[in-house]
Amino acid sequence: MASSSITHQPITKVNHTAITQTSDALAIEEPLEIRLEFGPKNNRQTQNISVTMRTPGNDKELALGFLFTEGIITHQKDVAKIEHSFIACAENKENTILVSLSEDAIPNLRNTERNFYTTSSCGVCGKGSINAIRTVSVYQDQQDDNFINATILHELPTLLSKHQEVFADTGGLHASALFMPNGELLLVREDVGRHNALDKLIGAAINNNWLPLTKNILLLSGRASFELVQKAAMAGITVIAAVGAPSSLAVELANEFNITLIGFLRNERFNIYTAAHRILISDYETTH
Amino acid sequence: MASSSITHQPITKVNHTAITQTSDALAIEEPLEIRLEFGPKNNRQTQNISVTMRTPGNDKELALGFLFTEGIITHQKDVAKIEHSFIACAENKENTILVSLSEDAIPNLRNTERNFYTTSSCGVCGKGSINAIRTVSVYQDQQDDNFINATILHELPTLLSKHQEVFADTGGLHASALFMPNGELLLVREDVGRHNALDKLIGAAINNNWLPLTKNILLLSGRASFELVQKAAMAGITVIAAVGAPSSLAVELANEFNITLIGFLRNERFNIYTAAHRILISDYETTH
Repeated sequence: MASSSITHQPITKVNHTAITQTSDALAIEEPLEIRLEFGPKNNRQTQNISVTMRTPGNDKELALGFLFTEGIITHQKDVAKIEHSFIACAENKENTILVSLSEDAIPNLRNTERNFYTTSSCGVCGKGSINAIRTVSVYQDQQDDNFINATILHELPTLLSKHQEVFADTGGLHASALFMPNGELLLVREDVGRHNALDKLIGAAINNNWLPLTKNILLLSGRASFELVQKAAMAGITVIAAVGAPSSLAVELANEFNITLIGFLRNERFNIYTAAHRILISDYETTH
Repeated sequence: MASSSITHQPITKVNHTAITQTSDALAIEEPLEIRLEFGPKNNRQTQNISVTMRTPGNDKELALGFLFTEGIITHQKDVAKIEHSFIACAENKENTILVSLSEDAIPNLRNTERNFYTTSSCGVCGKGSINAIRTVSVYQDQQDDNFINATILHELPTLLSKHQEVFADTGGLHASALFMPNGELLLVREDVGRHNALDKLIGAAINNNWLPLTKNILLLSGRASFELVQKAAMAGITVIAAVGAPSSLAVELANEFNITLIGFLRNERFNIYTAAHRILISDYETTH
């Protein structure tokens, strides 16, 4: 992570016996506005798509990943250019990013007006939210040719924490990491927002021309929400392992997309919530 | 918490020596659409304000707290009625809530079109985000008449966890809790979304006619982001204690509003980031 991800703040540290005036490392949180430019040469339009609170760094990946996982664009070739724009600002921060689409690319802006969650005719419910994602996702009904050895899974949190340096300093950053089935770490991205960390990771994978990510394992440093499983599904990920708990709707969505969802991956244990057939655990003793 | 906050899911539990087919408790995550009805009798309008992924329960508090902390309404008397609306849905869930304002109430809908973060003429930056909140907040420049004994603070996480029953079951819920300066627990609200837990808490406090919450302590079960400090500031809270880390912009906002912000409140320790004068630690040994 760039040093611009951290700032230092004078603090008063208190425990039961002493107070100390010292300094603490904080994860930086700043708004990022994502703007989209699109349309034919004689009729270019610019639209504000989103403002997200993120940790500066990998902003272009964040913008690319966000547009893709939210279904606004579907192919990397739709994107002609991504650059920071400098709007007059007292602090002169790089907090606006402009994504210029190629002239023939047509963004799906229906998804920016309201959330995915309510694009279904069903009204507002979990089932409707899942169906809405099915209508925009490029990758569906994941195949079963990605098999992971259970002993590999136990090692992933340690491999991540070795690379998650900013978290160790600030305690304030979420991480998303991409692994090979043999446990090789390919990518790590960190952010104060867990959805941003995953968008940065998927944006980087798009830049590397790695999609769909059918042969990889996605590791999430915290809990697995609906939104994170949604973004993973949009990138074709077949195996998600979270250090924390999944929500009910995260499990439903993973089940619907035939994604293997693992939770509580820590302390040499884990739970498999969906699509357990991808996890090779044949050497284990089975109890009921 | 209502039992509707939890569901059970068959899982495969794996550790280094055994696999077990068992069941796990999951925190329920479902969309909630907040709709607003307003205007004079002869010209009533209805507008969709937000869709949030939340844990069912305390939905009316969530809607009230959200509208208030986002600056869309400023007084409880603006609200005539809050009720679930039943939209035809295969699952028949109570996932839409309608807030009807009194005829003379004028909602500030500018904040719904784009986020707070960019309402400043400065463009997009942290300082602009803070200034934007200053323009809509009812309670500003907190007074210094709320003093907390440091020994009380150490006890709060234990008092919260005794009441946070769903978290213990699922590991998947965030909590916000409101305490008196003497450590008495007033309110706890839980949700898969940390912003929802705080909106529910503030909505309940509004219903109790407790605002501004200048004499209380807000405890957050996780990290302190800009968004959470924003919501607390909107309710006039003067002391925020988080079990996790704060972000840079959370600290800046707390400092600007003269809010005492405490982080890493666990294991008999804590850090004071801003407005340390409210914390009484005179009996402690001071080191440098």
